[in-house]
Amino acid sequence: MRDFSGDHRWLSINTATIRKSGGKDLPLTEIIEACVQRGIRAISPWRDQVAAAGLAEVSRLVRTHGLELSGYCRGGMFNAKCLVLVVGGLPGALQGKPEHKDIALSRTQVRDGIAELLDYARQVRMPLAIEPLHPMYAADRACINTMEHALDVCDELDPQRTGAIGVAVDVYHVWWDPKLRQQIERAGKDRLLAFHACDWLTPTTDLLNDRGMMGDGVIDIPRIRGWVEAQGFAGYSEVEIFSTGNWWLRPHDEVLDTVIARHMTAV
Amino acid sequence: MRDFSGDHRWLSINTATIRKSGGKDLPLTEIIEACVQRGIRAISPWRDQVAAAGLAEVSRLVRTHGLELSGYCRGGMFNAKCLVLVVGGLPGALQGKPEHKDIALSRTQVRDGIAELLDYARQVRMPLAIEPLHPMYAADRACINTMEHALDVCDELDPQRTGAIGVAVDVYHVWWDPKLRQQIERAGKDRLLAFHACDWLTPTTDLLNDRGMMGDGVIDIPRIRGWVEAQGFAGYSEVEIFSTGNWWLRPHDEVLDTVIARHMTAV
Repeated sequence: MRDFSGDHRWLSINTATIRKSGGKDLPLTEIIEACVQRGIRAISPWRDQVAAAGLAEVSRLVRTHGLELSGYCRGGMFNAKCLVLVVGGLPGALQGKPEHKDIALSRTQVRDGIAELLDYARQVRMPLAIEPLHPMYAADRACINTMEHALDVCDELDPQRTGAIGVAVDVYHVWWDPKLRQQIERAGKDRLLAFHACDWLTPTTDLLNDRGMMGDGVIDIPRIRGWVEAQGFAGYSEVEIFSTGNWWLRPHDEVLDTVIARHMTAV
Repeated sequence: MRDFSGDHRWLSINTATIRKSGGKDLPLTEIIEACVQRGIRAISPWRDQVAAAGLAEVSRLVRTHGLELSGYCRGGMFNAKCLVLVVGGLPGALQGKPEHKDIALSRTQVRDGIAELLDYARQVRMPLAIEPLHPMYAADRACINTMEHALDVCDELDPQRTGAIGVAVDVYHVWWDPKLRQQIERAGKDRLLAFHACDWLTPTTDLLNDRGMMGDGVIDIPRIRGWVEAQGFAGYSEVEIFSTGNWWLRPHDEVLDTVIARHMTAV
């Protein structure tokens, strides 16, 4: 397992983490500058932020600064290491109007959709990373909720383990799973495409936007990272914190400085 | 699968469902009267409600009315069909001060604790029902979060399937699980000790107290009940709804009448 305590070369910032600064929207161009100032080498931007700042300008900044992209949220390609798939749940549920209750049907449709996308992804050499989301999002955001289920889909669609499809391990979504270590070992290096970090707070006051800073919650992040790296994963540790009530209210400089410090002590 | 559409003989009310009436505490004695008035044959009371009303008085009422107890929440015995175990998570987490982050350790302690309790439970012929809670409660309420994990514990502690230990299936906690049907079949009749119903709302606005009335959410309850009954389960369908923002604000008569109606159409 790599030693993160001396520097933050393996830190990537998911740009949602400083989407707001002091409660106000922070443009992606300023997010990038703030990261570059601190020697952060990689980011994972969100499509809406790229659209707002302009793709050409964002591309120029990324190239100028030699930034790497540990992922791209969600959909789209853009030179990222992998495309993170948040696969969706029951149609309409995110809008509070679920069209049916057949989660097995949604899971079949998701599997078929990924199969179709995989053909194209192979052509353009863009690995697909299925991100299992926490079961509390099964209805409205993603009906793949465990590593085991995600890997079952990978095995079905890519039995030869070509590297075209794998998983994104976000500790927030999977930390509770009693089979987590076993499934990380099952995934192996070729299926471990991304590693995301934040923390689970007790109490958690909001299902979506009350994620914690690493070290402030109950997840033993170094233990999980140890399992992932024991398989040979050597990519970025991407920090993604949605926090309407705390971190998004603070100045982004403070947030980034805290992320860097915690990356060295609590990841 | 039994037909619930003609009457509510298999309905049991978890008394937390009408713990409040119009926003105010409703004593257990009045809860019992309201249930009896409607021909409800079984309840599952909470220990704090029993303590407040007095054990002797509650026992008298239960006997007088010939009420059955589909469970008892949580701990204690009291002639119930089974003792529902909500096994706990990380020590201190429920108070917001987790003492450690080693969920594997908590799980080992829970297994050891159940093993010890099981000896006594066998003597008094009180089956223990492990209730897997939704993974969003893994830190602070229960670190057994899937049917598979609960059944692993059952198999380890009671390989002969004596009926001394099994599971309580609450659709709210397990509906999302892609292995749910498989694990219900694995459980079989002797391990299926209780069936609880409520619904998962989209959106869910509170992790604990925003449970939905059956039919108002995304859970295909009849499908899950069908799987459980295909194994031979023929006990009560216990309704348990924690709802600070909706049902607990309404008069309990309205809540009970709605529960009975939905029991016949959405369970």
